[in-house]
Amino acid sequence: MRGADALVSVSAAAGMQVCFANPGTTEMAMVDALTQTKKMRPVLALFEGVASGAADGYARIAGTPASVMLHLGPGLGNALANLHNARRGQSPVVCWVGDHTSWLRPFDPPLATDIEAIARGCAQWIKTTSSVEGLPADALEAIAGAYGPRAGVASLIIPADFQDQALPEGFELPGPEAGKPRPKPLDRALVERAVNLLRGAKNPLLLLGGPIGDEASLLTAAKVAEVVNGKLLFEQFPRCARRAPGLPAPDKLGYLPFQARSQLAPHDVIVLIGADDPVCVFGYAGETPRLAPPESQVVDPAGEGRDPLEALQAIAASLELPKTPSNVVQKAEHGDVTGHLQPDTLCRTLARLLPEGAILADDGITSTLALYPNLTGAAPHDYMSCKGNSIGFALPAATGAAIAAPGRRVVAYSGDGSALYTIQALWTQAREGLDVTNIICVNRKYAILQMELMRSGGSLEGAGKSLTEIGEPDTDFAAIAQGFGVPARVVRDVPSFSAALEESFRTPGPMLIAAQFG
Amino acid sequence: MRGADALVSVSAAAGMQVCFANPGTTEMAMVDALTQTKKMRPVLALFEGVASGAADGYARIAGTPASVMLHLGPGLGNALANLHNARRGQSPVVCWVGDHTSWLRPFDPPLATDIEAIARGCAQWIKTTSSVEGLPADALEAIAGAYGPRAGVASLIIPADFQDQALPEGFELPGPEAGKPRPKPLDRALVERAVNLLRGAKNPLLLLGGPIGDEASLLTAAKVAEVVNGKLLFEQFPRCARRAPGLPAPDKLGYLPFQARSQLAPHDVIVLIGADDPVCVFGYAGETPRLAPPESQVVDPAGEGRDPLEALQAIAASLELPKTPSNVVQKAEHGDVTGHLQPDTLCRTLARLLPEGAILADDGITSTLALYPNLTGAAPHDYMSCKGNSIGFALPAATGAAIAAPGRRVVAYSGDGSALYTIQALWTQAREGLDVTNIICVNRKYAILQMELMRSGGSLEGAGKSLTEIGEPDTDFAAIAQGFGVPARVVRDVPSFSAALEESFRTPGPMLIAAQFG
Repeated sequence: MRGADALVSVSAAAGMQVCFANPGTTEMAMVDALTQTKKMRPVLALFEGVASGAADGYARIAGTPASVMLHLGPGLGNALANLHNARRGQSPVVCWVGDHTSWLRPFDPPLATDIEAIARGCAQWIKTTSSVEGLPADALEAIAGAYGPRAGVASLIIPADFQDQALPEGFELPGPEAGKPRPKPLDRALVERAVNLLRGAKNPLLLLGGPIGDEASLLTAAKVAEVVNGKLLFEQFPRCARRAPGLPAPDKLGYLPFQARSQLAPHDVIVLIGADDPVCVFGYAGETPRLAPPESQVVDPAGEGRDPLEALQAIAASLELPKTPSNVVQKAEHGDVTGHLQPDTLCRTLARLLPEGAILADDGITSTLALYPNLTGAAPHDYMSCKGNSIGFALPAATGAAIAAPGRRVVAYSGDGSALYTIQALWTQAREGLDVTNIICVNRKYAILQMELMRSGGSLEGAGKSLTEIGEPDTDFAAIAQGFGVPARVVRDVPSFSAALEESFRTPGPMLIAAQFG
Repeated sequence: MRGADALVSVSAAAGMQVCFANPGTTEMAMVDALTQTKKMRPVLALFEGVASGAADGYARIAGTPASVMLHLGPGLGNALANLHNARRGQSPVVCWVGDHTSWLRPFDPPLATDIEAIARGCAQWIKTTSSVEGLPADALEAIAGAYGPRAGVASLIIPADFQDQALPEGFELPGPEAGKPRPKPLDRALVERAVNLLRGAKNPLLLLGGPIGDEASLLTAAKVAEVVNGKLLFEQFPRCARRAPGLPAPDKLGYLPFQARSQLAPHDVIVLIGADDPVCVFGYAGETPRLAPPESQVVDPAGEGRDPLEALQAIAASLELPKTPSNVVQKAEHGDVTGHLQPDTLCRTLARLLPEGAILADDGITSTLALYPNLTGAAPHDYMSCKGNSIGFALPAATGAAIAAPGRRVVAYSGDGSALYTIQALWTQAREGLDVTNIICVNRKYAILQMELMRSGGSLEGAGKSLTEIGEPDTDFAAIAQGFGVPARVVRDVPSFSAALEESFRTPGPMLIAAQFG
């Protein structure tokens, strides 16, 4: 048994089922190990950022990590933006990065880079395997490293010779326990402090975030909020929020500091349930970093990497909760949508037609403002946002989510600018026959940058125009989609969008819908 | 004057004329500085790897660095693969990476990463600006840092507030001298040793590489080789080689160790003229790292970062050289090409039609084997190869070369797999109206990986098939090119390829030619 065979075997035994890959020469033994062991599903991406984004989307839906097979430092670099999103999204992702054969590495061949340095840009667990005998244990440590305490990216760098060499005869593979999550025990004092603050508060807030977002947590959080006369709010970019009639539908914290400050201002006590102490997304002149009112008390009952779900349950157990919460949403009645095709009418149409069990991957663009509120009360679905704010997330994440959840419709919601960073995701969707509806909001600009330029007093002429407008030449998304094997519809009004959406939702496989605004 | 205005002004004064950019919120002041100062040409890329590859191609042709404007760690990550190629290609490239406002950075906002760590993966000069007053000097140090002694990537990380703040009244901008190259003085003893070895050698070799490749160096090298009865050879992946009748046309060192060893075996003395002591590209089992015969003497007259061109001239001055070398190539007679469309017939057709002054950017793929030898004796042109071996180089590098050399035809030579990493380059070519002919050799596979799999005894079934074949679905390059605004021709035989090539060469602007093999 080669090192690579052991890597795949122990990882599969620990629950890893999928390998998103864009391999090169230094990964050939790992590729062959996937072939020989047949223990994991290989999924090819034409660009590494698609593979890493898919692993993020997969982890958010499956709850377990996938591996991402990458070719040396440049492959890891190409994957980095979506690994950053995965890290911020607290998604467990395990990178298998091939490295040069150990005896060649010191001679600095053309493809050599400082892989560990690059990995430090996004991974919380990094190791370079130093022998074939060490590889199986490293594989499991990487999985545990990705799980946390806070989930994120683990990068295992594996020299080609240690993949290829045979393990000594009689070598015993470690059991899967070493690859399991290792939660940090709850700190009862922190929980008690949170309960006391909640009880004494005039207007407490439960700020939800991180891994919190499933049905049970949301119901528990709603009951706690109700009993302490408090409110629920999601952090700026929820990781994976269950949205359904009968569940609470907390607002999201605003992107701009003035919005966020006005949402937080009324609260004297802010209890962080998975969320971090909220800070500005960007440091505008005249602002201060923290968003909570300076006089408020901010407490994290799961501080320092403890499990926020366990903390929430402990808080709930200390209070007398109602059986069912009353602060939940009802099923919305969606009438026909009229008017021009704009983000608002588009999202209302989406809300009307969304099939039960759908998954949304949102790139976090200007058109996103209309998405979340309009989907409140729609059919039960999961909402994933781009927690790391690096655009080019939605199409790859939707691809991975579809691999994790066959039978569920996945909707990628992206802009034209954002979709083009990782447009190669369409090819993997076509190859794997994934039920993904890619909605591209086409406004022919980096609208958010134009807003930021104007906000800072910059000009929209000259470079201010040429570096923020992308309509010359106009991108033909239908042609690009066709080029990657995905059928496409270009729509300019609500009825056409509605028809295309219905067609995609009833047709297996991927589709791209380019919504041309204005 | 804001920090960003000073950054652009001093960089322009030091000779930097172009900024390849994909900006975000933290780069808005730099964008506005480009608008206000009008001192540099802004060129937008839809993906950062296009911008960095364009800067590499630009530097190889212009001889001066361009800047690459990138958004935080994820933007730098997306640029990394082609920055790696630029570093290996000894191309001076200056990255301007925006960072969060300095007071926000410690609070770890969503887009924060360890940017310096990522930069260490490819840059030889790295600094984070710590005040607006420091920014102008940092800008010039970055340029000098990119120049070398050995040219490469400099990454200047600039917090948004230091871009945006005004410099104190009366602040004097530093002069452009600080941004000039700082060559290391020649070591006469090293040169003398090389001359003595050359004189005493039975069969010496001059191994050319790094910055060596222009007409004057090649002629000098040819004369030196002639007078010592030696041979010329290029390193595996020449940076920018002038090729023309009347110039020597050294072979390239082979990619596979057995080829390279047989080329080096006859030589008792190997003098490195810009090249490094050659090593294997990959560490195959049973190989050793160095490729030169163990008993040969390998000497670098420009060791430790000295200028190889100066060393070559010093060697030449120590010898009695002929006025013109005789070991040069003649203009080749290109008859009509017949037979199936294959890399060989394709490259012979290209050699026949190549216009004088063309520039070739070669991705370094399996079809590359036919390119370099078939172009020997063609019309005078420059040949750039992917020195860092990270594919996805040719289309972006051709884009940058075309910006550097208006009026010259640029040919990108890529495979289907390699072109798809950075296919967004087509859009920048269309927007800027660049005279680039993109030849895509379509074989529907990562052929090099299938070769590597077979070489290592791996299977081409299962993952060995699904991770190395890209023909299902088949990529429609004509549709993708059209989607990005570039006209395309799909050809399946030599006459059609020839016609498409002629059409592209006589038509201003970009074109994509997808050559479908077998």
